[in-house]
Amino acid sequence: MVEYIGIEGIQRIVGRIGPAAFIEGLAAEIETDYRRWSEFDKSARHAIHSPGGVIELMPTSDGQMYSFKYVNGHPKNTAKGLLTVTAFGVLADVETGYPLLLSELTVTTALRTAAMSALAARWLARPDSRVMALIGNGAQSEFQAIAFAHMLGIRAFRLYDVDGQAMKKLARNLQGLGRHDLQVTLHCSAAEAVEGADIVTTVTADKRNATILTPGMIAPGMHLNAVGGDCPGKTELHADILRRPDARVFVEYEPQSRVEGEIQQMPADFAVTEFAQLLSGAAPGRASPAEVTIFDSVGFALEDYSALRYLYKLQRQQGQPHKIDLIPHLENPKNLFGLLAAGNPSAAITKAAARLAKSRTAELTAP
Amino acid sequence: MVEYIGIEGIQRIVGRIGPAAFIEGLAAEIETDYRRWSEFDKSARHAIHSPGGVIELMPTSDGQMYSFKYVNGHPKNTAKGLLTVTAFGVLADVETGYPLLLSELTVTTALRTAAMSALAARWLARPDSRVMALIGNGAQSEFQAIAFAHMLGIRAFRLYDVDGQAMKKLARNLQGLGRHDLQVTLHCSAAEAVEGADIVTTVTADKRNATILTPGMIAPGMHLNAVGGDCPGKTELHADILRRPDARVFVEYEPQSRVEGEIQQMPADFAVTEFAQLLSGAAPGRASPAEVTIFDSVGFALEDYSALRYLYKLQRQQGQPHKIDLIPHLENPKNLFGLLAAGNPSAAITKAAARLAKSRTAELTAP
Repeated sequence: MVEYIGIEGIQRIVGRIGPAAFIEGLAAEIETDYRRWSEFDKSARHAIHSPGGVIELMPTSDGQMYSFKYVNGHPKNTAKGLLTVTAFGVLADVETGYPLLLSELTVTTALRTAAMSALAARWLARPDSRVMALIGNGAQSEFQAIAFAHMLGIRAFRLYDVDGQAMKKLARNLQGLGRHDLQVTLHCSAAEAVEGADIVTTVTADKRNATILTPGMIAPGMHLNAVGGDCPGKTELHADILRRPDARVFVEYEPQSRVEGEIQQMPADFAVTEFAQLLSGAAPGRASPAEVTIFDSVGFALEDYSALRYLYKLQRQQGQPHKIDLIPHLENPKNLFGLLAAGNPSAAITKAAARLAKSRTAELTAP
Repeated sequence: MVEYIGIEGIQRIVGRIGPAAFIEGLAAEIETDYRRWSEFDKSARHAIHSPGGVIELMPTSDGQMYSFKYVNGHPKNTAKGLLTVTAFGVLADVETGYPLLLSELTVTTALRTAAMSALAARWLARPDSRVMALIGNGAQSEFQAIAFAHMLGIRAFRLYDVDGQAMKKLARNLQGLGRHDLQVTLHCSAAEAVEGADIVTTVTADKRNATILTPGMIAPGMHLNAVGGDCPGKTELHADILRRPDARVFVEYEPQSRVEGEIQQMPADFAVTEFAQLLSGAAPGRASPAEVTIFDSVGFALEDYSALRYLYKLQRQQGQPHKIDLIPHLENPKNLFGLLAAGNPSAAITKAAARLAKSRTAELTAP
């Protein structure tokens, strides 16, 4: 049996502690795992692209546990009433290879991406940051807002989306949090939303080289949290922003980000800093209040590993975990075929089982 | 919702038609898919090795459907009462990226490997083959025997395993099939079992460069179905068997087999023929009754794709498919956060939802 967390399960688990505490707890797990970066087996994710989107597998392991995530990205899905991104994943025991947990990761990916964004911003944004522009108000946007309100002390959110309905949905959901200390404003353009922001989060879905942010929008001291550009041919920042002499770019796992991140627009020797280097002290963080810091986030397998292990722990803490019969349990592991004889009402099999029972001392023609 | 086939499900589905008919139906699906080889996105599987074994992901797609399999290989597991190989997989819709079916593949992998072995043998073994040696009598062996009895007309099985209990278990299970036209004999060594065989199937589990078959055991005209060597450092055949001037080696997907198959022992330019080339007529099959044909099988993602699509079809044909809540269904796909408000009894969330309901015309500070 494999433990299982479906949509009902994630609602229950997150509901028990609330999304803000869930995100903060997850950010702590992610930080712990990034601090032991060298222990992880790292590879760029496996992607199969099609005209409508991409399907990816993201495996990793620290030698104790193994995890992978299945995730798709299909920007045209929302027009059909479907999600742009769906995901699920598995945590497994490296020693036996047995899966331990199968979990939904659609909701969890939004939570873990927000946790990673806020964690990076805690290391990179100016500590006095209070205003965040949020460009792209789709499925992930509430999670980003909650993470930055809770973990960074952001008090004003300046929203913009090409889809006015999405913008209003986000505003309503943020109002629904009941936090009267949060100010939420809707804007007519990305440029207007960005004005006066300490942090700019871009989390748009279009699979193309978009220029959501142009050089003129960027002020000294800003932290840019670029979440939406995460695929070859899918970027959000004008390349001149990356080229600013006062800007530094931070990534999760350089080989993957070179292909998928904003830096796919730059030459292969363009300087970047891996987040793990910040944590280990191998590289400095923000150098001055005027520096522009850019977190070129694409999502790395380690973050899903952290999320799956966190969910596994939370579900066990919260009581009897749900289970599904994805893996067989056998009395004799070499008798897999016995599964098709046992518990099976079909005539052929039952007949075979009956014969087998009769001939307990099988008369075998031994040589 | 995603359709689901667990252990109970595979017992039900295979039980309804019987393992022999299931394997033959699956072999037909696999053959159909190999005939459109060029349509598939092919890559060597992603593997993470550890001292105890390996965990692999095997993705592929034909542009319409996408599939992947998770599979481990841990030879020491049986000593702990666990299976050497467990597996599961997913079939997804390329157009939307949504998963359609999550299925157990532990039992199914044994069925599909047997189907592939018998399919290859139908193209490569001498048509008058009636005797098969079966070396390695573990979890996969019954499936191999059933496939070769049903699809090739094998009537005599000569068994050998270092574990005498495994050998007796296989003999009992084969006797339990109730087919009085099958002769089953147990042997004291691989050499003895192989004597007089038309086909030799090796399906052992040890993760090392073993020499289950040595050159002296091989007679002209034999077909070797080498199933167990499927991992770097895990082979079953002495390299001199591959070097025989009267032998030809057939593989599934050359780039993967170079790393994982018996041919990992050979130089990179050692001649092999891909199975798909046989089907398309691009390469000839067996040249004479005296030729030694070797199917250096490691298992390729296409075969799991075929198996998942076959299971998806069978479960739908057989009635109401089982479903699990792995993927959310949303009224508004951009309102993923709404999931954490709806259907959630926690105080924080309920409070937020109540507030949201009250303020239907949200008073937003528009600029």
